[in-house]
Amino acid sequence: MIQIFVTGGTFDKEYNFVTGQLYFQDSNLPEMLERGRCTLDVNVRTLMMVDSLEITDLDRENIAHNCRGTGTKQILITHGTDTMVKTAEYLAKADIRGKTIVLTGAMIPYAFGSSSDGFFNLGSALAFVQALPAGVYIAMNGRYFTWDGVQKNRSTGYFEAVSPEQ
Amino acid sequence: MIQIFVTGGTFDKEYNFVTGQLYFQDSNLPEMLERGRCTLDVNVRTLMMVDSLEITDLDRENIAHNCRGTGTKQILITHGTDTMVKTAEYLAKADIRGKTIVLTGAMIPYAFGSSSDGFFNLGSALAFVQALPAGVYIAMNGRYFTWDGVQKNRSTGYFEAVSPEQ
Amino acid sequence: MIQIFVTGGTFDKEYNFVTGQLYFQDSNLPEMLERGRCTLDVNVRTLMMVDSLEITDLDRENIAHNCRGTGTKQILITHGTDTMVKTAEYLAKADIRGKTIVLTGAMIPYAFGSSSDGFFNLGSALAFVQALPAGVYIAMNGRYFTWDGVQKNRSTGYFEAVSPEQ
Amino acid sequence: MIQIFVTGGTFDKEYNFVTGQLYFQDSNLPEMLERGRCTLDVNVRTLMMVDSLEITDLDRENIAHNCRGTGTKQILITHGTDTMVKTAEYLAKADIRGKTIVLTGAMIPYAFGSSSDGFFNLGSALAFVQALPAGVYIAMNGRYFTWDGVQKNRSTGYFEAVSPEQ
Repeated sequence: MIQIFVTGGTFDKEYNFVTGQLYFQDSNLPEMLERGRCTLDVNVRTLMMVDSLEITDLDRENIAHNCRGTGTKQILITHGTDTMVKTAEYLAKADIRGKTIVLTGAMIPYAFGSSSDGFFNLGSALAFVQALPAGVYIAMNGRYFTWDGVQKNRSTGYFEAVSPEQ
Repeated sequence: MIQIFVTGGTFDKEYNFVTGQLYFQDSNLPEMLERGRCTLDVNVRTLMMVDSLEITDLDRENIAHNCRGTGTKQILITHGTDTMVKTAEYLAKADIRGKTIVLTGAMIPYAFGSSSDGFFNLGSALAFVQALPAGVYIAMNGRYFTWDGVQKNRSTGYFEAVSPEQ
Repeated sequence: MIQIFVTGGTFDKEYNFVTGQLYFQDSNLPEMLERGRCTLDVNVRTLMMVDSLEITDLDRENIAHNCRGTGTKQILITHGTDTMVKTAEYLAKADIRGKTIVLTGAMIPYAFGSSSDGFFNLGSALAFVQALPAGVYIAMNGRYFTWDGVQKNRSTGYFEAVSPEQ
Repeated sequence: MIQIFVTGGTFDKEYNFVTGQLYFQDSNLPEMLERGRCTLDVNVRTLMMVDSLEITDLDRENIAHNCRGTGTKQILITHGTDTMVKTAEYLAKADIRGKTIVLTGAMIPYAFGSSSDGFFNLGSALAFVQALPAGVYIAMNGRYFTWDGVQKNRSTGYFEAVSPEQ
């Protein structure tokens, strides 16, 4: 079984046509899994629905707590891209043993249709969480990165490999 | 580097609005990789553009020949779903050593927009080809199957695990 | 009140992912009206769900009968493009007095997403049926044509103005 | 010939995936007309690209000036919905004689895909501008309103008929 934890991020943002603002409603995950004709044994649980710039270490401890608590060894987390690396680092240091944890997200909301990268990212993250050994990873741009070997380039929006800190 | 071989299939079918028939134009792969914001080193080569019901063993030998010839060890093949398992079997027995070959496709054409599973399947297939050991696999429905452990259920359109033939 | 009669056509075709064939399910009209945020008083009634090449004069008499029977003077008919002109002619000669009847359709199914012209055509047809005087019209390609001043160019798929027959 | 003046508004907003903000790029009008398979003789000219809350009376005079200057009697203006009624009133009082002017827009950006009302609104506005007598109108929600018989309900986002001011 694969446990999916939803935390929000651009991935799940919607457009409020009255205010013109982006906001969160329910996660698009169930619809996406159906559209992907996914037959994996998946459990989706929404932990929070926030912009990742607002995620605090208390929120991260909540995520870590849920990762420890779930019975499965395969965990996928949807997360805003701005602090995705920070949360990955937190989880890597949070004493969660023997589990493959993959964080993914999107640069363009899934609800914005044919321009969004979210559906592609979900497909790759689900595959990586099944195929990679225990550890904490980020799956973006078709690639996977170990938690300490990646940074988000804030001017381009792409994730890049970096040498792990010594 | 990941080598992508395009063979056609529903994945790349388009709708001809004059005749009302489905047909093949250029592959959607390049556009999909861009939309997925994919930063992998990928080479896309179209070997054929056909419905998989029309693929012959001569075509399969052509695909096998190209798999042997490419310098890379990671090969993704887009293929119609109807005979995907047959081509996978052919490649598994075609004396291609030490390479990870993943076949994927779609049940609904990518060109048909928000109902298609193609973009999701491409994401998962790209991930599996990076993470799985050498062998021949099918990536559909969010899962991967070994070439001899899968069949397509023709009444539902889903791929199912089966026990490898003895 | 505007009466919408649904007869099928490319407008409402869907893709059957098991057989790879186009077919008819329920009409997309209600979803389209909601997406268009339409606040008109509209009644949608499906008379048939067929490819317009299969529409017989018996079917046309059925449509005419319904046009006569409805209490409103504004009638929109969704119809396949291949015989749309023929049905328009039938209705023009069917002794339906004092009503504005607009036929529209699509060259690409609405269900095929961002390539379809159906949503645009629906918007224009709804506008024409409100604004044009009594008569039978075809609304396609952003334009309206009187029933005896139009033909479909079968090689391009566009509707063209022709001089009414003498 | 139909003259289309583009002024921006939600209709043409795009999502900047680096900043997460909505912004304006080139208008989607040309792509929309092509997708709608529109064969009308249309000229598209961008006068400004702004949120309608930022439109000043100086901007409105610019729009009026262009309406007077164009040789055609059919003018369609894409405009943000927040001050669409105000601009319509300005144009109605701006001494533009003998022309049909239709303002339209969208509640959800066209670029946001299958949820947007923009394509439907464009179809209806193009139809109304061909079929209505000289005057200034707003085309939204499938309907047309005279400039002095409409208001935008800011809590629902729908346009509603009101009695013209005495």
